[in-house]
Amino acid sequence: MSTGAVVAAIARKRDGHALSRAELAAVLDPQTPDHQLAAFLMAVVWRGMDDAELDALVELMVASGDRLDLSALGPVVADKHSTGGVGDKTTLVVAPLVAACGVPVAKLSGRGLGHTGGTLDKLEAIPGMRTDLTVEAFVDQVARVGIAVAGQSERLVPADGRLYALRDVTATVPSVPLIAASIMSKKLAAGASRLVLDVKVGAGALLTDPAQTRLLARTMARLGHRAGIETTCLLSRMDEPLGCAIGNALEVAEAVATLGGDGPPDLTELCLTAAGLLAHDPESAAAALASGAGLNAYRRWIAAQGGDPDAPLPQAPARVGVAAARSGVVESCDARGLADLAMALGAGRVRKGDPIDPAVGIVVHRKTGDPVAAGDTLATVHARSEDAVDRAAVAACFAIGDGPAGSRPVVLEVIRA
Amino acid sequence: MSTGAVVAAIARKRDGHALSRAELAAVLDPQTPDHQLAAFLMAVVWRGMDDAELDALVELMVASGDRLDLSALGPVVADKHSTGGVGDKTTLVVAPLVAACGVPVAKLSGRGLGHTGGTLDKLEAIPGMRTDLTVEAFVDQVARVGIAVAGQSERLVPADGRLYALRDVTATVPSVPLIAASIMSKKLAAGASRLVLDVKVGAGALLTDPAQTRLLARTMARLGHRAGIETTCLLSRMDEPLGCAIGNALEVAEAVATLGGDGPPDLTELCLTAAGLLAHDPESAAAALASGAGLNAYRRWIAAQGGDPDAPLPQAPARVGVAAARSGVVESCDARGLADLAMALGAGRVRKGDPIDPAVGIVVHRKTGDPVAAGDTLATVHARSEDAVDRAAVAACFAIGDGPAGSRPVVLEVIRA
Repeated sequence: MSTGAVVAAIARKRDGHALSRAELAAVLDPQTPDHQLAAFLMAVVWRGMDDAELDALVELMVASGDRLDLSALGPVVADKHSTGGVGDKTTLVVAPLVAACGVPVAKLSGRGLGHTGGTLDKLEAIPGMRTDLTVEAFVDQVARVGIAVAGQSERLVPADGRLYALRDVTATVPSVPLIAASIMSKKLAAGASRLVLDVKVGAGALLTDPAQTRLLARTMARLGHRAGIETTCLLSRMDEPLGCAIGNALEVAEAVATLGGDGPPDLTELCLTAAGLLAHDPESAAAALASGAGLNAYRRWIAAQGGDPDAPLPQAPARVGVAAARSGVVESCDARGLADLAMALGAGRVRKGDPIDPAVGIVVHRKTGDPVAAGDTLATVHARSEDAVDRAAVAACFAIGDGPAGSRPVVLEVIRA
Repeated sequence: MSTGAVVAAIARKRDGHALSRAELAAVLDPQTPDHQLAAFLMAVVWRGMDDAELDALVELMVASGDRLDLSALGPVVADKHSTGGVGDKTTLVVAPLVAACGVPVAKLSGRGLGHTGGTLDKLEAIPGMRTDLTVEAFVDQVARVGIAVAGQSERLVPADGRLYALRDVTATVPSVPLIAASIMSKKLAAGASRLVLDVKVGAGALLTDPAQTRLLARTMARLGHRAGIETTCLLSRMDEPLGCAIGNALEVAEAVATLGGDGPPDLTELCLTAAGLLAHDPESAAAALASGAGLNAYRRWIAAQGGDPDAPLPQAPARVGVAAARSGVVESCDARGLADLAMALGAGRVRKGDPIDPAVGIVVHRKTGDPVAAGDTLATVHARSEDAVDRAAVAACFAIGDGPAGSRPVVLEVIRA
């Protein structure tokens, strides 16, 4: 395709027209320079995309690389994805529960960037755990053990790799069609047949507008359905951290506690909902939790990837409690603020490739709706040293007022195509 | 400035906010990569810019390079600019008329690209003519001869050089603030104190929407006024070629004929209007045309830049007449279509740096409103060979109907700040 064809396609998108498959192919061509792609992306943020256009975009993105063949694993293979939240360790709980129900789970995952952690980073806090499986080892492990979670190959949807990196530096992330295409192209290429997407709603989420978030969920459900994948979207609350732990080893410990029946109520609720949908059987999912079958599946999975489920997790030398200045009820607990503080301690990475510290993080002891007395510990900060802890900044993430006590559901809505 | 500051600025423009001077400076920094600049430009096409924001953008662009100091030439120095039209040779007529009225003219000009020719290309059709003057030689020539027209140094508004090249390949040309900033930053840096801007309206123009064109004129007049430059915008018709000649040597010949009192009515009207405004004296401008003083000023100017005003201009070997198929009245004469045909003959360049053929082009003999009889010559094509001429394509640029005969004014409106 000539440069002229790309400029003409950008101009048509700029003027609000839907692009043809040939025009999108010209834009996505690896020869198209970054500056043309960037202008196209901003024009899409502006004008959006219609259904046929988005279908073509996703198909072209999937066709840009390899596609996993999981047909040897039988007719049903489960996968899940979250749009990214603070303290989101659901994969570590949901995958074992689903596998314990007899449904194989094959999940490819990315690294964390910015304020949300990545599943691979959490898993790698477990001594010995490997996430760099070959495709053959990945498929073989699902067949033998029932679960595998591994890093995504760069040969899977390379077009998304390029767009994703560019969107990050050109302020073109918040776009329903671009987010949907990025997530769904990877999920379609990853080969599972049953999919639960956890779409976060609230201040800590990718999209802050509830109507846009609902549209994103509906759009992804439609794209999955169209590709023959049973796709269910959960809208879940992300105004406060999910569960209590933020930080890689701390989150692994919380996931294990949850599988042992001793998890925070919100995390347990979300995990059971997702596992029930993926297993097509909410009661079996609940039974797998109650019986310890889920925890056993977790241990087999971790061991299969070289991890030692009995080894002590990395621990930070300093533990600093942050106390409540007044009595009352927690009215909000700022997910984004706590995530940024945890990142500053070393729990996350600002730039791709930055090292992370698996031991550090924050454990929240009082969440929204919890009563609190002055002097109670709101959170414990796990850090390299006491000096690294900004108590006032942590305390400022909690708003304590006179509002009514009581918990709220974490799953707000279930959306299917 | 960090990459984060640039991303944040693009995001604010994307969300419809006006950027501060510091934010614009971060975006315009030479370190900012092309893909971020491209996303910013598309966001500006989308959201526009308010007055204070555009003022800051223009000031930052001017400050990116050198600025000519013309104060030695006295309190009044005239300059003109056209937004680009087909057959636009007005500078070659207006500059001598203004100089003949005693007002010095100092104009820096660019090369032609695409369907509109550049003044430098036209001047270089004159044997011996040089346009690569140093700043010192340029200023000295205005002082001695009253006129200089030279190529623009790359040190003048380098920020515009970069933005202009990027806009061309990212479909971000049609934006009132971006066009206004590009033109006015160069005019402010070029140092004149009195400016006429010829803003083209119609199918052959940069902006096709009349309301947008009027807004562009008002915006540029405001920017000039704010910088202490007396700025007048003419809105002029560009649905058919200006005058009759398209092609470099052919246009020089037409300019000389116009200075001799024998020019096409539309070209003469536009040149006298512009010259009258720049001289602050329409009657003197008309007298300079009638007396031959303008033609004398032209001859002195050309000679000062090494050109021979008496040397024969380059001539193409083949001249092919294109006849009218029916009788009637010319209802339209497609400027863009004729320009593309002239470019295909070699009169213009598709890519920067392409060579051009000064001799080839098209001379139109019947314009909109002119009566025509079947078999009359509509246009003469000047080409390297008869084979290079597509008679049918030339004829197709003329629509002949039964509409009323009669001419229309070329100057539609005069706009001041």
